[in-house]
Amino acid sequence: MVRVGVQADLPEELSGFFPSGIELVKMPKDLKEAIEIEFWVLPFNRVEAEAQMPLVQGVKVMQSAMAGVDWVLPWRRDGMTLCDGRGIHDVSTSEWVMTAILASLKWLPVYAKGQEERKWIGDWKLRNPFLSERTHTRGRYRVLSEELWGRTVLIVGYGSIGAATEEKLKVFGVKKVIRVARSARTEPVEVHAISELDALLPQADIVVLLLPLTAETKGMFGRERLERLRDGALLVNAARGPIVVTEDLVAVLQEGKIRAALDVTDPEPLPEGHPLWSAPNCLITPHIAGLTPNFMERAFGFIGKQIERYLNGEPLENVVNNAGY
Amino acid sequence: MVRVGVQADLPEELSGFFPSGIELVKMPKDLKEAIEIEFWVLPFNRVEAEAQMPLVQGVKVMQSAMAGVDWVLPWRRDGMTLCDGRGIHDVSTSEWVMTAILASLKWLPVYAKGQEERKWIGDWKLRNPFLSERTHTRGRYRVLSEELWGRTVLIVGYGSIGAATEEKLKVFGVKKVIRVARSARTEPVEVHAISELDALLPQADIVVLLLPLTAETKGMFGRERLERLRDGALLVNAARGPIVVTEDLVAVLQEGKIRAALDVTDPEPLPEGHPLWSAPNCLITPHIAGLTPNFMERAFGFIGKQIERYLNGEPLENVVNNAGY
Repeated sequence: MVRVGVQADLPEELSGFFPSGIELVKMPKDLKEAIEIEFWVLPFNRVEAEAQMPLVQGVKVMQSAMAGVDWVLPWRRDGMTLCDGRGIHDVSTSEWVMTAILASLKWLPVYAKGQEERKWIGDWKLRNPFLSERTHTRGRYRVLSEELWGRTVLIVGYGSIGAATEEKLKVFGVKKVIRVARSARTEPVEVHAISELDALLPQADIVVLLLPLTAETKGMFGRERLERLRDGALLVNAARGPIVVTEDLVAVLQEGKIRAALDVTDPEPLPEGHPLWSAPNCLITPHIAGLTPNFMERAFGFIGKQIERYLNGEPLENVVNNAGY
Repeated sequence: MVRVGVQADLPEELSGFFPSGIELVKMPKDLKEAIEIEFWVLPFNRVEAEAQMPLVQGVKVMQSAMAGVDWVLPWRRDGMTLCDGRGIHDVSTSEWVMTAILASLKWLPVYAKGQEERKWIGDWKLRNPFLSERTHTRGRYRVLSEELWGRTVLIVGYGSIGAATEEKLKVFGVKKVIRVARSARTEPVEVHAISELDALLPQADIVVLLLPLTAETKGMFGRERLERLRDGALLVNAARGPIVVTEDLVAVLQEGKIRAALDVTDPEPLPEGHPLWSAPNCLITPHIAGLTPNFMERAFGFIGKQIERYLNGEPLENVVNNAGY
C-alpha cells in the first residue's frame, strides 16, 4: 500500500478527501526518527517541512498546497517529483487582490483610523496618507473615495490566479487589463513578455504582482522600476516579498510617489521596528490571502485527487520544474 | 431662456456637461436675496439647500444628485417636480458595498490595527473582534480570512444599485442572491416582497440594505429583525442610518451575534462619544460611498441631459412621488 505522509493533527474533515487504498502515515510535528513514505503532503510551515526533510525516506512525490514552492527547491533531492498548488489559490488570492485594491481606492485605512479615534471625517481635520491632493476636491465637492471603474490594471505573472482576478476586475468596468508573463502569448488572450514590462508600467493605475519567486524575479521591483509607475499608482503584492526591494519601496512610499497593498513582505514576518510598517499609503496584511476555511477544503480536495492519480499511475498535475514553475 | 440655478462655485469641468441655450444662475452659498430660477440643481448639502429654499422663486424642477431625497420631501412646495439621482449611484455605491463586504470577510479592520501596532499577526496574540471562534482553526491550520465565494447575500431594497451589486457578487461565485423590494415581481428576475423579509433573513450570510428612507423603512431593522440574522452574519448599510435602530444594533454587536459595515449612521455624523464607534465587529466609513471624482462627472452628465429634456419638453427621468420613490 502506498504510504502517504501527512501532519499528525490533520483533521478528519480534511483527510476525508483522500482516496481509500492508501496507508495514512501521521507525522508528528517534531519528527525525531527516520520515516518511510512514498507520497509526502508537505506541511504549510516551511521550517517544519525543512526540519522533517532529512528524516523522510523513499519519497517519490512531494505535494505542496502552496502556489509558490521556491522554498522547497534548494533541498529537493534527485528523483523526487515536486508538485505545487497551482489553481487551488485562484479564489482566495483573487479575492484578496480585489479586497486590497478596493480598500486602497476607498481609503479604508484612513477611515479605520478615523473610527479608532472616534472621529467622523466631516468633523475631522483629515490626516490622510491615501489622499492624492489632486483628487481632494472636484470644484466645491469633496472627494472622499475613488473608483475601480475606468482604471487600467497591469497583472505581472499572469497565470490562473491572474485570470481569476481579471474576471473579477472586468465586472467592475476597468478600462483595460494588461497581462505580463515570462513569455508572450496571444491565445486565448494576449499576454506580453516580461521584457516589455518597463514599457508597460507607466500605463497602469494599478499593478498586481502574482509571480513566483525565482532567481529572475527576486528584486525585480527595485527603485528604477518603481519610479516607472504612474504618480499615485497602486502596487499590489500578492506573490512573494523579495520580488520587491523593500528599501526602495519604503523610499518611494515616503516620497509620496505611489501607494502599496502588501500581503507579503521581505523580511517576513516584518519585524516590529521596520520602517515599512509606518510608510505612508501602504496597507499591510500578514500573509493571510490563502488562509480561508474554503481554501483548506479546496487544497485537500486537490491533494486527494492527486493521490488518486498517483495510485492509478496517471500523470500528476502541477509538476514543478527546476526553474520553480 | 430657462434659468438654471447652480452653486456659485460649480467648477467649469462640471457645468461643461450642461446644454447651451440656458441661463446659468450662480447661487452664492449664503444666498441672502430672493432669486428667480426655473430649474434648480440642489446643492449636495441639505442644510444649505433648506436655507436657500425660502428665497428661491418660480421653481418648476428640483433636481438632486442624491439617490435618496427623503430630506427634500418635507419642504417641497406644490407644483415643484422633484427628481432624484437614481442610476448615477450604481457604480460608486455598488463598489462601496463590495469593498465593505470584502474588507469585513478578510478582517481588514483587525489587520489595520495590527499594522498600527506594528505587529505581524503570527507574533501577535490576536485581539480579533472579527474572528468567529468556529473558523479560527481548521484542524491545525489557522484561518486568517474568509471568502465571499459560496455565501448567500440578501439585498433589501433591490433597485438599480442592487442590480449593479448583484452583477459584481455573481462573479465572486456567491451561492445565491436573494432580492427584496417593496413589491414582489418575477421579471426580469425574482424579487420578493418586503412582507417576506422576516422569513428570508435567516437564510443570508450577508444582508445589504439599499432602501430609501421613508415612513415605512424608518426603524425597519430593530432588535427583533436583527436577531433573525444568522449567527456571525454581516449587515451592510449603504442606505440611510435611521433604517436601523442604532441602540438595538449596538446591543446585538456587543453581544457578538452579528457584524456590521456601515457607510451611514443614526445620528449622522456619529458624535465622538457614541457607543457605535467602539462596538465590536463593526466597520464604519463616514458616508463616503458617493464621493468619488467619477461620480461627480456621472452626476452632472445626468443633470445636463435632464436639463436638455426639460428644454425640449420631453418627460423628465427619475421623478419622485410623495412616498419618496
